Amino acid sequence: MQYLLYYWTGLQGRGEFVRLALEDAGADYVDVARRDGDAVMQPFLEGRADGARPFAPPFLKAGDQVVAQVANILHFLGPRLGLVADTEPARLEALQLQLTIADLVTEVHDSHHPIASAEYYEDQQDAAARRAADLRRHRLPKFLGYFEQVLARAGGRHVLGRHSYVDLSLFQLMRGLRYAYPEAMATLSPGLPLLEELATRVADRPNIAAYLASDRRVPFNNSGIFRHYPELDGGTGA
Amino acid sequence: MQYLLYYWTGLQGRGEFVRLALEDAGADYVDVARRDGDAVMQPFLEGRADGARPFAPPFLKAGDQVVAQVANILHFLGPRLGLVADTEPARLEALQLQLTIADLVTEVHDSHHPIASAEYYEDQQDAAARRAADLRRHRLPKFLGYFEQVLARAGGRHVLGRHSYVDLSLFQLMRGLRYAYPEAMATLSPGLPLLEELATRVADRPNIAAYLASDRRVPFNNSGIFRHYPELDGGTGA
Repeated sequence: MQYLLYYWTGLQGRGEFVRLALEDAGADYVDVARRDGDAVMQPFLEGRADGARPFAPPFLKAGDQVVAQVANILHFLGPRLGLVADTEPARLEALQLQLTIADLVTEVHDSHHPIASAEYYEDQQDAAARRAADLRRHRLPKFLGYFEQVLARAGGRHVLGRHSYVDLSLFQLMRGLRYAYPEAMATLSPGLPLLEELATRVADRPNIAAYLASDRRVPFNNSGIFRHYPELDGGTGA
Repeated sequence: MQYLLYYWTGLQGRGEFVRLALEDAGADYVDVARRDGDAVMQPFLEGRADGARPFAPPFLKAGDQVVAQVANILHFLGPRLGLVADTEPARLEALQLQLTIADLVTEVHDSHHPIASAEYYEDQQDAAARRAADLRRHRLPKFLGYFEQVLARAGGRHVLGRHSYVDLSLFQLMRGLRYAYPEAMATLSPGLPLLEELATRVADRPNIAAYLASDRRVPFNNSGIFRHYPELDGGTGA
């Protein structure tokens, strides 16, 4: 099966959580918009293509099937790529954790765009400073502390007790947060040893290491979810 | 199977999406915190209970299994309660739509709390006015227009072509928005005839009608996701 991944070009964004699963598994896939341009997604987004209509990228085409929403795509791919145990309890726990990651990803996005996704950061910078301060002080410790504890209870190496797509997403989360909020993460990291070690282990997996060294891995930048504005990272917004 | 639902007392909140599925199906369930108090959820939230650890309510206990995150709970319950076709494509499409509803629910929540969930509305009212204006002008038309079109393509009566938990959630979304944003919805509703008719049909389902007339249905109020602040509904914030 060749998978067709559709996501905006030029940024990692939410597509990266799917890309990491495909890369880790060595799956046969095409990053379609990178090959053909973003306009290739329009028929799907406008409801002119067959299959379930996506509200937004990323979405995946697998044969005739269209699957959208990151957690749903990973739930679909998990057993097919060997990235989750193929039992209902394991798949539900993976989905639950992935949805909690997705909630934090939205909060991280909204820390630089608390008013309107479609407006410039500069036009909502005061609100962003307040929201980012709350993220640093309350939300990051709460979410990351939760994942650290779930990881500890699962034995410390894998959040589901074995390698899964959720580990790959936790790696992406930790690397994204280190890019966007280096000062805040320098403070939090000593309390998150298992998450830090997990992220390092994932980065060292052969297929992931090869991917990260390739030009397929777009560097973090200020078009994505994880954006580095020093003033949001404990500076003037604190 | 008796299901145990855990959610904060005193509000509909995210728990209501699960409650509507259990009520519609006539399932045997206990709303545990309403019976025993909110403190009964603490062992789960603190990782001292068996099963997958929830990050937040709602969560469901089914035998030994703990399932958290609304879309995940409904994905689990769907085939068990006859609220989705038991095929992979149908379940994935239901999950995809439910996750898109969840995204809008978060945006509606953040329209009154754009800075910090834990702070008072009154302390983020200016930012809320701006975010609510964007919700009314851009986000609600985009999301609701999407659901209207998906419904049209599915034949107009059921978003998945047959009754499902997603229809129940769309009902809740439409009723919640009518409570929170009556002026904005009065403007949008004429363009959403299928969603309005769906909501009316769901309200008339015997088990749902009985539930809505019972004291188990907590009225909408300003502790929940959908809050009515007239100044956010096209008044001074416009």
